[in-house]
Amino acid sequence: MFNTVLELLKSRNYKAIREIFMDMNEADVAALLQQFYDDHEVEKYELPLLFRLLNKDVAADVFAYMDSDTQMMLINAFTDKELQEIVDDLYLDDTVDIIEEMPANVVARIVKSADAETRKQINQILKYPKDSAGSIMTTEYVYLHRSYTAKEALDWIRHVGMVKETVNTLYVTENRKLVGVLSLLDIVTADDNDKIEDIMEDNVISVDTLEDKEYVASMFSKYDFLSLPVVDRENRMVGIVTFDDAMDVIQDENTEDFSKMAAIAPNEESYFRTGIFKHAKSRIVWLLILMISATITQIITNRYEAAFAAVPLLVSFMPMIMDTGGNCGAQSSTLIIRGIALDEIHFSDFFKVVFKEFRISIIVSSVLAVVNGVRIYIMYQHKCDYPFMLALTIALSIIATVILSKVIGSMLPMLAKKCRLDPAIMATPLITTIVDCCSLFLYFNIATIVFSHIGIL
Amino acid sequence: MFNTVLELLKSRNYKAIREIFMDMNEADVAALLQQFYDDHEVEKYELPLLFRLLNKDVAADVFAYMDSDTQMMLINAFTDKELQEIVDDLYLDDTVDIIEEMPANVVARIVKSADAETRKQINQILKYPKDSAGSIMTTEYVYLHRSYTAKEALDWIRHVGMVKETVNTLYVTENRKLVGVLSLLDIVTADDNDKIEDIMEDNVISVDTLEDKEYVASMFSKYDFLSLPVVDRENRMVGIVTFDDAMDVIQDENTEDFSKMAAIAPNEESYFRTGIFKHAKSRIVWLLILMISATITQIITNRYEAAFAAVPLLVSFMPMIMDTGGNCGAQSSTLIIRGIALDEIHFSDFFKVVFKEFRISIIVSSVLAVVNGVRIYIMYQHKCDYPFMLALTIALSIIATVILSKVIGSMLPMLAKKCRLDPAIMATPLITTIVDCCSLFLYFNIATIVFSHIGIL
Repeated sequence: MFNTVLELLKSRNYKAIREIFMDMNEADVAALLQQFYDDHEVEKYELPLLFRLLNKDVAADVFAYMDSDTQMMLINAFTDKELQEIVDDLYLDDTVDIIEEMPANVVARIVKSADAETRKQINQILKYPKDSAGSIMTTEYVYLHRSYTAKEALDWIRHVGMVKETVNTLYVTENRKLVGVLSLLDIVTADDNDKIEDIMEDNVISVDTLEDKEYVASMFSKYDFLSLPVVDRENRMVGIVTFDDAMDVIQDENTEDFSKMAAIAPNEESYFRTGIFKHAKSRIVWLLILMISATITQIITNRYEAAFAAVPLLVSFMPMIMDTGGNCGAQSSTLIIRGIALDEIHFSDFFKVVFKEFRISIIVSSVLAVVNGVRIYIMYQHKCDYPFMLALTIALSIIATVILSKVIGSMLPMLAKKCRLDPAIMATPLITTIVDCCSLFLYFNIATIVFSHIGIL
Repeated sequence: MFNTVLELLKSRNYKAIREIFMDMNEADVAALLQQFYDDHEVEKYELPLLFRLLNKDVAADVFAYMDSDTQMMLINAFTDKELQEIVDDLYLDDTVDIIEEMPANVVARIVKSADAETRKQINQILKYPKDSAGSIMTTEYVYLHRSYTAKEALDWIRHVGMVKETVNTLYVTENRKLVGVLSLLDIVTADDNDKIEDIMEDNVISVDTLEDKEYVASMFSKYDFLSLPVVDRENRMVGIVTFDDAMDVIQDENTEDFSKMAAIAPNEESYFRTGIFKHAKSRIVWLLILMISATITQIITNRYEAAFAAVPLLVSFMPMIMDTGGNCGAQSSTLIIRGIALDEIHFSDFFKVVFKEFRISIIVSSVLAVVNGVRIYIMYQHKCDYPFMLALTIALSIIATVILSKVIGSMLPMLAKKCRLDPAIMATPLITTIVDCCSLFLYFNIATIVFSHIGIL
């Protein structure tokens, strides 16, 4: 598709391009234009040219689907009149999303292009805190009066429906207070003279403007809503959050958790759009913290120099013991972190969870200890003087390490949550570092006991 | 809430419970009943009793929101007539979801309770492969003929709308082939005599019945659809996937990725509902594989016994070098795995990605090497005879390890994808094990070269 359009562009066959665009979904056109932005061989003036070939009624939709770099490039190429047309056609929450990514001079141009009413609403949404329900809502919803008949309501929807973001769910307000909710289908299937207040549902679930957006998104998963009303402290309706914004929040939240769990500072830009210095910066902080804390393993190991001087073979099992501990701890902490994120595990389950992990670790560690003990005994039977003691040391160390790392791995995320920290930081990297210290300490102590017993240490 | 209802239940005040239920959202009632199922002090017959207090028109909805254990318990308590009423009221895709979790005898009872038409449709959906679009679709959608007028269409919707899962998006078919799509609002705002074919959008995006459900879910994120039509090979429409099912797929997929990335076999049950043996089983396989592969680190370490016999301090830096390598590799592989999952990174970007990670690793490793080199020089200045050589060895090893682990960490997920493996398996645990071998090998080699140079080795 890209190459076809590029060919047509070179031969100046704009009519053909226009027809191709007309047959495509807005999101696909946006992705295609994005490719033109990313391709360095395309002249920069050609993207605005392509954009102007779009039908007026889809241009704003296509614009909303593009990423912020491309949007900025286009805004800079637009005349004031073009920008005004786009801003007129954009849904309010998309306008706000765009504004949030732009530098101040571009924001000023966009706000100037909006009409007075839109400008007021943009400013209202922008003043909510970054991760609040208010910041992701739109003020473009359809409200009805409870005294309307179904017919009056339909007439009102016909009148205002086309410029609002969603009309599938309608809200009933009285003195700006939210009193009911109903679907477009409820109105369509009602008799003309039925009163709205008789067909509406009056138990309305709503969220406060300051509610955390991740909590709001989780309500969409739970209740399967298409949209969710946002109200202020006095239960006055101020906007709605739509399901597509909730889906974006869920995906962003998951991406953020994946980053944090790999000890990377979260970053809202995509992989390729982030420069190497920004990438390096977001990774280096945690690496430094983890490295410095590794000083503790260094001190522990130093203290047991006598043990591995007498039994040098002990050193070669250090990586295996440490990795097993790290992996076991990571398994537990990941499951608990995910459980907390999905609201399945709470701090009140603390002892239940730790006890469960303890029992699991007994099963897991027994199997690993037996398999490894046997393997080591067979491998070192003829190669060293004390194969049984070596196998026993490793097997006991595995049991101690696995149990300890699973218990620590399950406790720390819940404790983090309790201390109002993000449980995701208690993931693999930090758990590995903490567990390393413990497992080496256990390993060398067990080795010292076993080998002193046979007089080697 | 739980305690209130429990009190009322004990005092047999069923009327009050009924009123409480009437004021609650169906999902919340389901969560409450779930608590009664989970609470061991509640008698088992009390759950069916509570369920029977629900209004007939919400009972099926509440039932659909419960988890499969509770559903099974209720089905076993239901009379045939009660079961039939529930199955009648359930949306078809919910019925199929329930059936997929039940043992054969319960499935037989459910299918027997359904009317002939529903039974046929259930069987049709059940025959699609597990992760296909067909398996998550519903056949309850509203279709229109292109020759209908807006008024005829509205009458038809009033006639069938209430029993279909979604009517916000309507599909136009001709000889069962999908030819158009429009929204309920399009019809409401059209003139009575407008023809459907004139107001419908005729570029319809659809998916094949056999399309992977994760791909289908990603289309919802991309296009912000409320529902997506599913067609067979001949473009005949067979059903729709609704956004709530797509959201569930996205959440399940993320949970699965979190599990795989922590070396846990994915499990569809929640944490608490999985028994300890099943938990142990899903964790033990990868632990064993990773442990056995750690034999390689063992062999490498054995080979360099001479080095750490001469310079025992070398042993104490092993954990730090290994962990830094593991963490750096994990950062890169996590970002790439997530990029692949979000369809941002493809195999065609292989060299671009590896080169980017290479440049990032140079920045990261230089900073870490300098910080650690200085720290070690200061710490060991008066404690050992060759503080500079020690600091140099560690600094060089950090540089080599970080670069190598970032390059390996970025390559393996893309190679896995190319080999049709799930990139998520190339996450922290496996990367750590692979990187450990390489980093120890590099570390001991660098140490040998540096210390032979000053005649210690």
